[in-house]
Amino acid sequence: MDRGFLFGDGVYEVIPVYQGKIFHLEAHLQRLQKSLDSIQITNPYPVEKWRSIFNELVESSPKSDQSLYLQITRGADAQRKHGFKALTPTVYVESNTLITKSKADLEKGFCALSQTDIRWHRCDIKSISLLPNVLYAQLAKESQVEEIILCRDNQITEGATSNVFMLKNDTLLTHPAGKDILAGITRSLVIKSAKACGLNVQEIAFSLDDAQQADGLWISSSTREVMPITQLDNLPIADGQISPYWHDVYEHYQQLKHD
Amino acid sequence: MDRGFLFGDGVYEVIPVYQGKIFHLEAHLQRLQKSLDSIQITNPYPVEKWRSIFNELVESSPKSDQSLYLQITRGADAQRKHGFKALTPTVYVESNTLITKSKADLEKGFCALSQTDIRWHRCDIKSISLLPNVLYAQLAKESQVEEIILCRDNQITEGATSNVFMLKNDTLLTHPAGKDILAGITRSLVIKSAKACGLNVQEIAFSLDDAQQADGLWISSSTREVMPITQLDNLPIADGQISPYWHDVYEHYQQLKHD
Repeated sequence: MDRGFLFGDGVYEVIPVYQGKIFHLEAHLQRLQKSLDSIQITNPYPVEKWRSIFNELVESSPKSDQSLYLQITRGADAQRKHGFKALTPTVYVESNTLITKSKADLEKGFCALSQTDIRWHRCDIKSISLLPNVLYAQLAKESQVEEIILCRDNQITEGATSNVFMLKNDTLLTHPAGKDILAGITRSLVIKSAKACGLNVQEIAFSLDDAQQADGLWISSSTREVMPITQLDNLPIADGQISPYWHDVYEHYQQLKHD
Repeated sequence: MDRGFLFGDGVYEVIPVYQGKIFHLEAHLQRLQKSLDSIQITNPYPVEKWRSIFNELVESSPKSDQSLYLQITRGADAQRKHGFKALTPTVYVESNTLITKSKADLEKGFCALSQTDIRWHRCDIKSISLLPNVLYAQLAKESQVEEIILCRDNQITEGATSNVFMLKNDTLLTHPAGKDILAGITRSLVIKSAKACGLNVQEIAFSLDDAQQADGLWISSSTREVMPITQLDNLPIADGQISPYWHDVYEHYQQLKHD
């Protein structure tokens, strides 16, 4: 009778751990709080309790690079009813070995397909009601592409499990934060790295046509970091090679990981 | 690790039982099959097995009027990954006492609020990724109204947990089936009843303005049957009384229940 199981009524976070150190825990817990507030679930623990739960899990794992998964649902009620009352939230946490692609692997470039963004209009909530994302991920798998890039009203919003960046000359564009995207922690770190590498970063939406005419297309997520997309809808982006600036931004991001 | 819990990756049905008889089981199982096909879950049982599962449950219950709830998820995998492989689906079935409002209660009329429809664009799949519906139901509860009526692109699609009908003269309008609505079994029975009562039924979308100028507004669901909405966004529909034709359609629907 858990409302996670019956209604997808919960939220989650994925937090990387590098060399035993939790990456930007505060930023992830802030985003978690925002998701919880949006759907009226009371955060069951203060920051320090979360920190100790995660540290215990990280320390008990043999691998130094890990991916923490945290899910909170509204809890279990006696009856299935859409509307809710205050319940004891269900907390589920797991840690998995984090395998990050090597730079040599990333430099091979990746393919993506575009699809109409049919998700709900509160993509800023990191909800476990993920059926559309599941269907996109499956399409990516069956199409043997790395990611599905989503378009709503002729604008690229984000990837099914990533944020999307487009390079034009020395400007990097990405969809602004808001209800259409989940503004990733990695997204903000890629923006920071890009600025440090001399790029002009603009949080402005762009179209699929713009992306197909771009000098480079990248996606970001906590497990992919910053990944070059070299082919979109079976057409090469620019010359189909790794775009300018990618190496610099990649290297800068690696530094941020170990700051 | 059930994908219902982790991803809202499943579908459901709600089936009324009147005087121990399952109401339109075949239609519900057909819609279930359509939902399962849409998200690539193999139906774990043939129709006869479902029938025997439901009959066993119905017979073991002391109440003759029941509401069967059936949920199928994609099953449990060893790892949390959006994309999927073939798994053994999880089947959950429960039966609850069905309490239907009396005609005298329905005749009091009900209030509704309109909201922008922010759900995903495959509302024809009866999915358990129900967070938007949960939030609407909660808004209804907190606003002390019976239902939230949803508008997308200036057209009323359906209610958060019902279909919507508008009466204008001797014509009954309801949003056409398609990806914007879950075409309910009750919806089709209300259409059948309305035709039998001499109404001209048109499956055509209408706007919030149209609804506010209507001669009557009804919602339908398996538990509400056909319910008159007499106030929308704090304004009365027509004179705020039960609309013409409602009594006839209600009575005809009661006959269908016991056919």
